[in-house]
Amino acid sequence: MAFLTDEKLVIVGAAGMIGSNMVQSALMMGLTSNICLYDVFSPEGVAEEMRQSGFCDARITATTDVAEAFKDAKYIISSGGAPRKEGMTREDLLAGNCKIAEDLGKNIKTYCPDVKHVVIIFNPADLTGLVTLLYSGLKPGQVTTLAALDSTRLQSALAKKFGVMQNEVVGAHTFGGHGEQMAVFGSAVKIAGRALSDIIGTDEFPEAEWEQMKKDVTQGGAAIIKLRGRSSFQSPSLLSVQMIASVMGGPKFPYPAGTFVQNEKYQNIMMAMDTTLDENGCTYKVPCGTPEENAKLDASYEHLCKMRDELVTLNIVPPTSEWSKINPNL
Amino acid sequence: MAFLTDEKLVIVGAAGMIGSNMVQSALMMGLTSNICLYDVFSPEGVAEEMRQSGFCDARITATTDVAEAFKDAKYIISSGGAPRKEGMTREDLLAGNCKIAEDLGKNIKTYCPDVKHVVIIFNPADLTGLVTLLYSGLKPGQVTTLAALDSTRLQSALAKKFGVMQNEVVGAHTFGGHGEQMAVFGSAVKIAGRALSDIIGTDEFPEAEWEQMKKDVTQGGAAIIKLRGRSSFQSPSLLSVQMIASVMGGPKFPYPAGTFVQNEKYQNIMMAMDTTLDENGCTYKVPCGTPEENAKLDASYEHLCKMRDELVTLNIVPPTSEWSKINPNL
Repeated sequence: MAFLTDEKLVIVGAAGMIGSNMVQSALMMGLTSNICLYDVFSPEGVAEEMRQSGFCDARITATTDVAEAFKDAKYIISSGGAPRKEGMTREDLLAGNCKIAEDLGKNIKTYCPDVKHVVIIFNPADLTGLVTLLYSGLKPGQVTTLAALDSTRLQSALAKKFGVMQNEVVGAHTFGGHGEQMAVFGSAVKIAGRALSDIIGTDEFPEAEWEQMKKDVTQGGAAIIKLRGRSSFQSPSLLSVQMIASVMGGPKFPYPAGTFVQNEKYQNIMMAMDTTLDENGCTYKVPCGTPEENAKLDASYEHLCKMRDELVTLNIVPPTSEWSKINPNL
Repeated sequence: MAFLTDEKLVIVGAAGMIGSNMVQSALMMGLTSNICLYDVFSPEGVAEEMRQSGFCDARITATTDVAEAFKDAKYIISSGGAPRKEGMTREDLLAGNCKIAEDLGKNIKTYCPDVKHVVIIFNPADLTGLVTLLYSGLKPGQVTTLAALDSTRLQSALAKKFGVMQNEVVGAHTFGGHGEQMAVFGSAVKIAGRALSDIIGTDEFPEAEWEQMKKDVTQGGAAIIKLRGRSSFQSPSLLSVQMIASVMGGPKFPYPAGTFVQNEKYQNIMMAMDTTLDENGCTYKVPCGTPEENAKLDASYEHLCKMRDELVTLNIVPPTSEWSKINPNL
């Protein structure tokens, strides 16, 4: 198999449902010939399954030792947080998983400061990604978070509603936080060539139905838990592996990613923007929608700021004015 | 994405761990633009996850209705049996899963007699595959069972022992039954160009260590249960999807498959042979090893005959003399 790279990819949380799926997906997509499975629980069983799947030309290692895992790592994807249970919001996970993110960031700084890119997917990813970036010492474009699931949920819901193939729905993006305060942008959406904005409010798609769809999209994770009896694991795995593939030089990632944002409007926050992921890491533009959509993005930002400030109160991060002391790149 | 086919692939047991992984793997490998998820438990959550993974150009349907699922099906992979629990042998599952296989075969005959190929992976697969074939009315080359896991386990164990990449171990195959009575063939194995038969019995690889390795391989499934706390699901999924890919015209499947065997030596049985899977289905040669290996294969066949005859006693299948009345192709 031709691999995108021979550089070391580390999957953090590799013994879990999402992590083990990421390992498989990375191998199937031929990302790298050098993949390391790391978890506090032994990921050796997952490594064995991969070898027994006939992935014969990749070096597959497994360890519970973080120093060994992170040594020479050039790419990391981490699903290594506590999972979300039925009835929990992403925010409920805030304190516990941000502490895990702090450790992750410090481990990166200690063991693999030359890592090229890190994708964070454990919730609340906007905050765990931010904390990881802060403590890792990496540059803003080197740490991204999984935000695409909201966009694919919107895309899928619209495809079903209008009875078209999902690839006929373009521009269905959500921005801002990955939590229930996300900003769903509909104004740029086209459905089989038709502008969604021309359809909303007609008999075909009454305003109330669109409002309900947006609400459903923000609660898409809870819907999967109801349907499967467990939180989603295949979709976050696949999308995050696609993200890391794009920074390895693979296919362009077509959905928004969560990225560190610092501009005149938004400061010291991580959230989904109009992003480009490539070998240079992540770059972004602030999306521009209708006044209502932009206001929703502002509100999502404010919500994220509140959660970030809660982390300050909890002493997990210092006030933003002191961040550059910890990470000069911020 | 370019698909191998646009014909309908049905994943039976799609709500389960193996089945949901097969759905994902089939989509990732671009097998077909038309995939149907069938299970007695709703597989809609899995379908939703797939749509939300951005598989935008495939038609992904989900149903609990077997008639709807099997209508126009051209390929089927079934993991839809009861799973194996820690401490259980594959044989413990015999009666329950063979009844499920009988229903599967009858459903194929009723709803999709024009199906091209069926891969069976629920255990004991040698028997469930045989029962499915009998009641489906299909030709022997149209139903195969997953047997490759034993070969990849042997290949992986040898790679680890000799410190080589797994793709440097060639010809590591097991034949006969997929249960603990399988026949592990070592005489054709080469390790980085060296004949394994020249190494066995030397200080580098004492006879006792090789005997232990063969024993470990036959108990590879139990080892995964110990390591992961659950039975393997990624490796059976991936290998079975590779099998169906090969009959769709995709890459050649490099490991043995379980196939219906009828010749002067072995009759009315399904077991792993030296197989070729391609668009014409499965063809096989009887492997020829050392006298000891051939004797082990004979013993594996005898063991399978006993289990088959147990099914006769249980009234799940009639005596073999009456099989052609149920399936004229046998």
